[in-house]
Amino acid sequence: MPKNAFYAQSGGVTAVINATACGLIETARQHPDKIGKVYAGRNGIIGALTENLIDTSQESDANIAALRHTPAGAFGSCRFKLKGLEESKAEYERLIEVFKAHDIGYFFYNGGGDSQDTSHKISQIGEKMGYPITCVGVPKTVDNDLPITDNCPGFGSVAKYVAVSIREASFDVASMAKTSTKIFVMEVMGRHAGWIAAAGGLAAEKEGDAPHIILFPEIEFDEAKFLAKVDNAVKNYGYCSIVVSEGVKNKDGVFLAEAGGKDAFGHAQLGGVAPVIAEMVKGKLGYKYHWAVADYLQRSARHIASKTDVEQAYALGKAAVELAIAGKNAVMPTVVRVSNNPYKWEIGSADLADVANVEKMMPMDFISPDGMGITEACREYLQPLILGEDYPPYANGLPEYVVLNNVAVPKKLTTTYELK
Amino acid sequence: MPKNAFYAQSGGVTAVINATACGLIETARQHPDKIGKVYAGRNGIIGALTENLIDTSQESDANIAALRHTPAGAFGSCRFKLKGLEESKAEYERLIEVFKAHDIGYFFYNGGGDSQDTSHKISQIGEKMGYPITCVGVPKTVDNDLPITDNCPGFGSVAKYVAVSIREASFDVASMAKTSTKIFVMEVMGRHAGWIAAAGGLAAEKEGDAPHIILFPEIEFDEAKFLAKVDNAVKNYGYCSIVVSEGVKNKDGVFLAEAGGKDAFGHAQLGGVAPVIAEMVKGKLGYKYHWAVADYLQRSARHIASKTDVEQAYALGKAAVELAIAGKNAVMPTVVRVSNNPYKWEIGSADLADVANVEKMMPMDFISPDGMGITEACREYLQPLILGEDYPPYANGLPEYVVLNNVAVPKKLTTTYELK
Repeated sequence: MPKNAFYAQSGGVTAVINATACGLIETARQHPDKIGKVYAGRNGIIGALTENLIDTSQESDANIAALRHTPAGAFGSCRFKLKGLEESKAEYERLIEVFKAHDIGYFFYNGGGDSQDTSHKISQIGEKMGYPITCVGVPKTVDNDLPITDNCPGFGSVAKYVAVSIREASFDVASMAKTSTKIFVMEVMGRHAGWIAAAGGLAAEKEGDAPHIILFPEIEFDEAKFLAKVDNAVKNYGYCSIVVSEGVKNKDGVFLAEAGGKDAFGHAQLGGVAPVIAEMVKGKLGYKYHWAVADYLQRSARHIASKTDVEQAYALGKAAVELAIAGKNAVMPTVVRVSNNPYKWEIGSADLADVANVEKMMPMDFISPDGMGITEACREYLQPLILGEDYPPYANGLPEYVVLNNVAVPKKLTTTYELK
Repeated sequence: MPKNAFYAQSGGVTAVINATACGLIETARQHPDKIGKVYAGRNGIIGALTENLIDTSQESDANIAALRHTPAGAFGSCRFKLKGLEESKAEYERLIEVFKAHDIGYFFYNGGGDSQDTSHKISQIGEKMGYPITCVGVPKTVDNDLPITDNCPGFGSVAKYVAVSIREASFDVASMAKTSTKIFVMEVMGRHAGWIAAAGGLAAEKEGDAPHIILFPEIEFDEAKFLAKVDNAVKNYGYCSIVVSEGVKNKDGVFLAEAGGKDAFGHAQLGGVAPVIAEMVKGKLGYKYHWAVADYLQRSARHIASKTDVEQAYALGKAAVELAIAGKNAVMPTVVRVSNNPYKWEIGSADLADVANVEKMMPMDFISPDGMGITEACREYLQPLILGEDYPPYANGLPEYVVLNNVAVPKKLTTTYELK
């Protein structure tokens, strides 16, 4: 009898993590001789710890296929970090207990840096704790901070959303600037790295195009330089369009979003960094502003997903199964860039030991010398990742996203597990 | 020699006002015997006052066709209200001076309530000031508050954007709710009317679907009732998704966005209403939140425009020209709803006298009895307006929006005009 597989989604979800699930489950279904059922963790790894497993074999082929165009995590995700094998021995023992009860021989963990660290630890439980399992990490994160892989599924679609949105809103501001709004500020995700903010720069294809300014978490905010550049844009182009990363910090290393005032009750400003920036411009230069905070809209925007991103997300799910049935343990499939123009890529693989605890930072030569734009090298890297559209089907004017039945696997254990 | 036409875009721009310009200019080009050149006001009506006219005949057919898929105002818009003929006699005399110099016999004004009021006044300058002109108002406003017409071009696309976005972000929150974010708040436009907020309700097609709560400017905010409904949603569905209109007010009639605290310098809270609502939930119920403010993103989102909206916007531009060459003065083409299901519509027309200074409010029977949702009557009205997709062409992963050459018409007057 072939062993069953466990699959879990971890951390912040994306527009395409379900496309990875789709690739993984569809591929597993093609190998019934190697993989029995695919059980998904309900709400990620805590589904394994609490023996809340979902039997994906109960879902129709049509439902599984629809995952390819459905954003967010169809099985539920979680923010829950497993510590080391020694520190959290009870948790690993519990996982083994659940795996054993459900005859699980394959472990697929779909997540970012922390999750790949967990994958790495789980890949060792065969050797260290006597429960042999084939463990494959599957990359996912809008933050684009996993090493070795060319990019992380989820990032390309956020990048496309941000570039499209700032282009559109900037067309709007340009229309209004003569008598009304002259400044537009769009806040985007990326507390530690400027990848997402940088993607906004793709919208500016020639001199004068918006956005005129990008503020990165990697660059200490310099108010005087910033205001001078804003004023210059308004004088030259009639308006100024700005993309700001939520992670921008001042010279004291304090997030600008938190460095604003306190309210009457002493609470920190409720708004993000966008209103702080906008109000600063208004106060110092007097220009009327508008601002937007895209928040979850950006990472769930499956309606404007990058086709490249969707294809890579699916291919990585597929590759994860292929690696597993080839007996590879402790690996993560990766995207390998073969060429830039035309963009060609293929699937490779990395050892989880090389992935765990390594954060890919944005190269400093991706940021222009004034610290407020992107370089050609950055554009060359980013451009292919937003290529192509992959529209979901629509009904009643709205995208038809699937909600799975998520049928529970009957529990086999009499023991329970309390989450700490 | 046929007379020339003047066309101007007015007020806040939309995803489809250029589609109206496209319909208008393409139709005018088909009637060279009736209409000479179409001159557009650079930045709206102030382009007429300052004799800054754009010669649209210098644009290629391809550029004009591309207006159909380009958001915002290609000729520039403005916020500038003309007062009555008596109060602002100098301005109307200046308009006549410019119209006469450029042989303008047709006036098309593409805007919302204020603009149709202006159109109405201009339609009277033949009779009252001796300069005969055929004046046709062309409807546009995301606020959907013009009377008589079934809806206003621009609204359907914002409605679609809001419904799609809240559905996507809610899928995200649902995935994360077990261990992280349980509350999502999306702030939308509509300072005076809840049309746009109501559109979010289209995403909820069955019991439990998001959004669970809609906050309207028409309904006095009741904190206790609101918090009870939030808590109920979290307990029943695991999370709560909220659409809030920027115009929501408390029992004292103060915008919630402004009723928050002041910062350390005594400035009003910089954020919008979304963070106020989110922080209230966190403070009273303890749930982790995320919030988004879509701002200009929502009204410029041509990438997810409603096909119905685009078609109506184009048809109204076309109809405006047809009305004008049929000699109709002081009218505005309208959308007439013929049937709901299937949605059928045709073009009608209204007298500007009946449009000017009438604001279409949302019927109270469109809001559910608890004041925090939409009724079936509302859904029946709104649903058709978001039907269909009308994707722009893409290059390099980004929508290809046209920037016109906007060639200036040589000035003929020696007089200038200072804007007040």
